[in-house]
Amino acid sequence: MPSVKRIDHVAVVVDDIESALEFWRDGLGLEVTHVEDVPDMQSIVAFLSTGDSELELVKPTDEDSGIARFLKERGTSMHHICLEVDNIEHFIQRMQTLGIRLINSEPVVGTGGKLIAFIHPESTQGVLVELYELTGQEPEIRLARARALADRAISGGKAVASAVLGFLRRLRRSGSDDD
Amino acid sequence: MPSVKRIDHVAVVVDDIESALEFWRDGLGLEVTHVEDVPDMQSIVAFLSTGDSELELVKPTDEDSGIARFLKERGTSMHHICLEVDNIEHFIQRMQTLGIRLINSEPVVGTGGKLIAFIHPESTQGVLVELYELTGQEPEIRLARARALADRAISGGKAVASAVLGFLRRLRRSGSDDD
Repeated sequence: MPSVKRIDHVAVVVDDIESALEFWRDGLGLEVTHVEDVPDMQSIVAFLSTGDSELELVKPTDEDSGIARFLKERGTSMHHICLEVDNIEHFIQRMQTLGIRLINSEPVVGTGGKLIAFIHPESTQGVLVELYELTGQEPEIRLARARALADRAISGGKAVASAVLGFLRRLRRSGSDDD
Repeated sequence: MPSVKRIDHVAVVVDDIESALEFWRDGLGLEVTHVEDVPDMQSIVAFLSTGDSELELVKPTDEDSGIARFLKERGTSMHHICLEVDNIEHFIQRMQTLGIRLINSEPVVGTGGKLIAFIHPESTQGVLVELYELTGQEPEIRLARARALADRAISGGKAVASAVLGFLRRLRRSGSDDD
């Protein structure tokens, strides 16, 4: 029987990742494990390790995105909870059978290269829930996305490049160097 | 160096635990592990297992409580994230040194008998964060609280007793019997 394996991460929408890190990284001592540009979600995300799970800071990169609207309406706050499942197709079918509204009725590739599907808060009493399944393709996809972030920095010219690099350097101040 | 060990639970405020279970228990297949009356928090809570962590459903029992006001203002939604730490006193001191506002500047006994302290959302960009440390006293405290719930049912007369028992029975429909 397919099941929920664990809380993978809890996402928090912020308007400034660096100042959010003053609490999560400097206050709680959580380590920044990776930073990622997610064009599909019009956001930059930073993950911090909390043992077997993660805390995700999400900063909108486009004022017209859903994330940006969420931030405008609710302010910085928890945005979604992500649960790891062992068979995402099974859960999607089960939700559909139960009449639970899905944002993704087909799995899509989300942050970290994971296969994900969001469940609509309308069917969960207000909680945006992300389900994901590991597929083994994640390292490859993460590499491609890190390259995209670097490309954006390079093609943006010197000013953009140094801003992005400075940002990454500051994020990593107390983060790991091997990711 | 004291550290954050894991996400212990994510709490969701609901106006009706039973209908919330239609998604979390029946839809996602999470198991209800325990139900608890928490007079200090003016709420009844139900915990569902998500592997090494838990999902907590919180229903206010008093209209004037902070939880009830949160529900009125924001609707059903994520309420707080709880992180397990190995030395809560250390974290409280660290927060105070950093000027981070605490709701509990001394640890208090929270749900499950755990030693907890809440950090004010003002200092975390809008996220209510609970820290807790395991002390070994938890089983004893949980037993006392289960008794308090039973006592409330008994002293409330037949109607209240059958309502509470019916409620517990329905919660346990697909929950475990050993807790």
